[in-house]
Amino acid sequence: MSKQATASLERLRHIFSMPLDRNAALLKIEAEISTNLLEFLRHKIVAERIEPRELEKFFREHSIPAAPLFVSEQAEFLLQTAVRHAVNTATPKFIGHMTAPMPSFMLPLTKIMTALNQNMVKTETSKSFTPLERQVIAMLHHLIYRRSREFYTRWMHDSTAALGIFCSGGTLANITALWAARNTLLAGEEAVREIGVGTALRQRNLHGLAVLVSRLGHYSLAKAADLLGIGRAALIAIETDSRDRINCKALAAQLRQLRARKIGIVAIVGIAGSTETGSVDPLHELANIAAGEGCHLHVDAAWGGPTLFSARHRHLLRGIEMADTVTLDAHKQLYTPMGVGLLLCRTATVLRDIEQQAAYIVRVGSRDQGKFTLDGSRPGMALLVHSALRVFGRKGFELLIDYGIEQAACFANLIEASEAFELITPPQLNVLTYRFNPCKRRTPRQDAVTHTKLLNRLNISLQRKQRRRGASFVSRTTLHLSAHPLPIVVLRVVLANPLTTTAHLQEILAEQTEIGLELEAGLRDAG
Amino acid sequence: MSKQATASLERLRHIFSMPLDRNAALLKIEAEISTNLLEFLRHKIVAERIEPRELEKFFREHSIPAAPLFVSEQAEFLLQTAVRHAVNTATPKFIGHMTAPMPSFMLPLTKIMTALNQNMVKTETSKSFTPLERQVIAMLHHLIYRRSREFYTRWMHDSTAALGIFCSGGTLANITALWAARNTLLAGEEAVREIGVGTALRQRNLHGLAVLVSRLGHYSLAKAADLLGIGRAALIAIETDSRDRINCKALAAQLRQLRARKIGIVAIVGIAGSTETGSVDPLHELANIAAGEGCHLHVDAAWGGPTLFSARHRHLLRGIEMADTVTLDAHKQLYTPMGVGLLLCRTATVLRDIEQQAAYIVRVGSRDQGKFTLDGSRPGMALLVHSALRVFGRKGFELLIDYGIEQAACFANLIEASEAFELITPPQLNVLTYRFNPCKRRTPRQDAVTHTKLLNRLNISLQRKQRRRGASFVSRTTLHLSAHPLPIVVLRVVLANPLTTTAHLQEILAEQTEIGLELEAGLRDAG
Repeated sequence: MSKQATASLERLRHIFSMPLDRNAALLKIEAEISTNLLEFLRHKIVAERIEPRELEKFFREHSIPAAPLFVSEQAEFLLQTAVRHAVNTATPKFIGHMTAPMPSFMLPLTKIMTALNQNMVKTETSKSFTPLERQVIAMLHHLIYRRSREFYTRWMHDSTAALGIFCSGGTLANITALWAARNTLLAGEEAVREIGVGTALRQRNLHGLAVLVSRLGHYSLAKAADLLGIGRAALIAIETDSRDRINCKALAAQLRQLRARKIGIVAIVGIAGSTETGSVDPLHELANIAAGEGCHLHVDAAWGGPTLFSARHRHLLRGIEMADTVTLDAHKQLYTPMGVGLLLCRTATVLRDIEQQAAYIVRVGSRDQGKFTLDGSRPGMALLVHSALRVFGRKGFELLIDYGIEQAACFANLIEASEAFELITPPQLNVLTYRFNPCKRRTPRQDAVTHTKLLNRLNISLQRKQRRRGASFVSRTTLHLSAHPLPIVVLRVVLANPLTTTAHLQEILAEQTEIGLELEAGLRDAG
Repeated sequence: MSKQATASLERLRHIFSMPLDRNAALLKIEAEISTNLLEFLRHKIVAERIEPRELEKFFREHSIPAAPLFVSEQAEFLLQTAVRHAVNTATPKFIGHMTAPMPSFMLPLTKIMTALNQNMVKTETSKSFTPLERQVIAMLHHLIYRRSREFYTRWMHDSTAALGIFCSGGTLANITALWAARNTLLAGEEAVREIGVGTALRQRNLHGLAVLVSRLGHYSLAKAADLLGIGRAALIAIETDSRDRINCKALAAQLRQLRARKIGIVAIVGIAGSTETGSVDPLHELANIAAGEGCHLHVDAAWGGPTLFSARHRHLLRGIEMADTVTLDAHKQLYTPMGVGLLLCRTATVLRDIEQQAAYIVRVGSRDQGKFTLDGSRPGMALLVHSALRVFGRKGFELLIDYGIEQAACFANLIEASEAFELITPPQLNVLTYRFNPCKRRTPRQDAVTHTKLLNRLNISLQRKQRRRGASFVSRTTLHLSAHPLPIVVLRVVLANPLTTTAHLQEILAEQTEIGLELEAGLRDAG
């Protein structure tokens, strides 16, 4: 190695030798980052208006630079570009998406995770993090299934069993659930995992597979049906009642038809907190139907699961304890950073037909947590979930849940009382939809179809304009409701930030009124 | 809300109001964590010996505590349990797995990621992070495919195109590649994504599907074959040559057979840095075969991809630029924290048949990065990859790669020169395998089979004992080699920590000699 290379290598080694609090330069950078972040997070949602094309100019070099950059330079660059123009999802007036504001203690804890850089796939690279993860799984299992102390003593640390798995989020949890359900349905000698979907169906004289969910099912279920070789057409959307809950009669009828057509039922999926309206399916009824059918019941409680912390509201999820599998997102209402979801399993054997092995990793009989996961290498996010669960405690989560649901009811009242806004889906949990409708209290001049189209255009413009102003944010979606002949565009609100107060909600509505009337006036002038 | 609840809510709000450097208590906790981590990371691999069952005792409560805990208490608990008994994967003598030691600048940067908590699925929750991520994808695309500036100007920020995707790691990248390949093979009017694998095969009069890879393919490929409904039996393991590279003649013969049997070829998979031995397939030849066959070529370069930074060694990967898709793990040789892999795509349309949409998220025509990903919600890890690429630069990565490969060659020489160790697979990159074999220079007393079994037992014990001592760590695996009649257990070494010096390697070998001879003596006494 040349003299120059040796010197460069020494510099590189310095970067890896973890000086942390010993390195003055790094400490200075860290302090600067903290101050800057603090300033950003105090700001409104968008620090500065900027068009996407302008933003792209910061990030257009396609070639990795040859020469190294000082960390301070890179930090400065990031602060001026990525941080400055990020979305402040944590402000009280960002109520449009299911992003969690960060409890401040997550920041030092994240440092532990990064510094240790454990890999959960295997105990050789995770040691203490393995039982820690298994405990978190058991704790959340207990939140849902409430089994006895004996049950957990028996299974919590049993390496042959899985009461659940960690994954990157609800999408992977839903996929894992349907994967396990498909493999269990088509298990045995000619197992689908070995011979594939085509041959497995032929062997069993089945004409296809189906997954049933209300038409409000999350898009990850269509992704799962595609991925798993079931096909998106096999994801059967069941109609809903006036409160967006799956129609159990329609479901039962559909099941009879499918059976007559020799279609194998992979799973019935119930929703506990739908993405679009926050609605909760009658899980108890679904559990009875699934039991009668002898098929897998999966509940997507990615959003609504933590409602179980609330003595007042947990009855809404009655029946969830009968589900074979339940999806729960920690980075939603458990307030951990992005990138951590779980799938919980009623019994320790639900995942046995998706178990993986390899000689160099996830060995048979080992405690390796990689045996049942869709992900391979995986960070020790369990540390953050463990901390959230213990620092907030059940009481803390109950307060957070109750407050969000209360705020949603309060916002619904504000909307109902307003002149120009129409509540579309009243909140069951802490999600609701509404729309700007200045004709709310008078008969529109146009026919219903023209009027709906006009309102749709108005609400799209309103949401965009509000987002671009950057003081507050609600999202929008398009709903197909039985009460409306056409799809209608609605504003969507998710209330899970404890810093959001009634005053904030009033301000948001006032801003929307202003934007809406301005847009309407513009339309009138133009028309 | 009761007075008590209001007071509790105020306390909770305080946790969310992001005090960072203003909060003395949190600052104190952070300082304590830093000092403690520093101490831990200076330590050897295992801070203290502890049996898994003892460790589980810290994590056996199954019920989420009702009352909240002070952050300081939780931090203290974690430091005494999870941190104290974690695996120090960053020490120079941990050379057994593909875990990356952490560059110290990743710690403050992780803080940015956690504090901003962007969600990459949608620009509404990621704004500046979207073009940042697309730039990182383009940079790594350029590392592999070296297309013109015009190409990147055209596609880098084109929202309808994907030059690649981010995901949680190589497993998901491999799954995504085969998912796209399957859907493209079975695209068109009766697309597999809509109608499923069974019907799609029947429509095309195909009798099955196949994925071809050398017998050293990563276990995630079997997982993918299971998941995608292709079936694990359809993953065809091709024999390898004496240097663990896929035998292209055997591959071609297999392809002819499959064609005759009307089996659709989903993909040929080449390996650039196999998990077990670090071997690299002849990618150029594979590319020609795949072109002749008209099928998808995927290259799993999760480990070996960054070898492209090295002017001296990049020729080993010649042909990778002809692959349709390439897996690359950033949390391996790009030295980012765990949880970030990429799939790079030769052209902007490779992923079109797995594109997803939903009205409330990943809208048609939007810049939303969630359109092509298996994951749904996803953190802004691109920030960390961006920083690694710029802070090290191409020159820095070249040094790291060259040093690792040099160290592997040096370790191979030490093994060859030793009395008791036998080099099993010489390093092509920075991975090698060897075994303790005290009979290396003399004829064993037993027959070959008995001798191999004895050596296997010895090497398993040796690796375990070394791990339990905790001063150093190598991994082990079982190889099926043409030169050996029986599967043989080998010690496996991965050299990618720039802090690992020749002296460390000598110490490791000395320790292993001591353990090995002790074990052998024990066996002799017993026998």
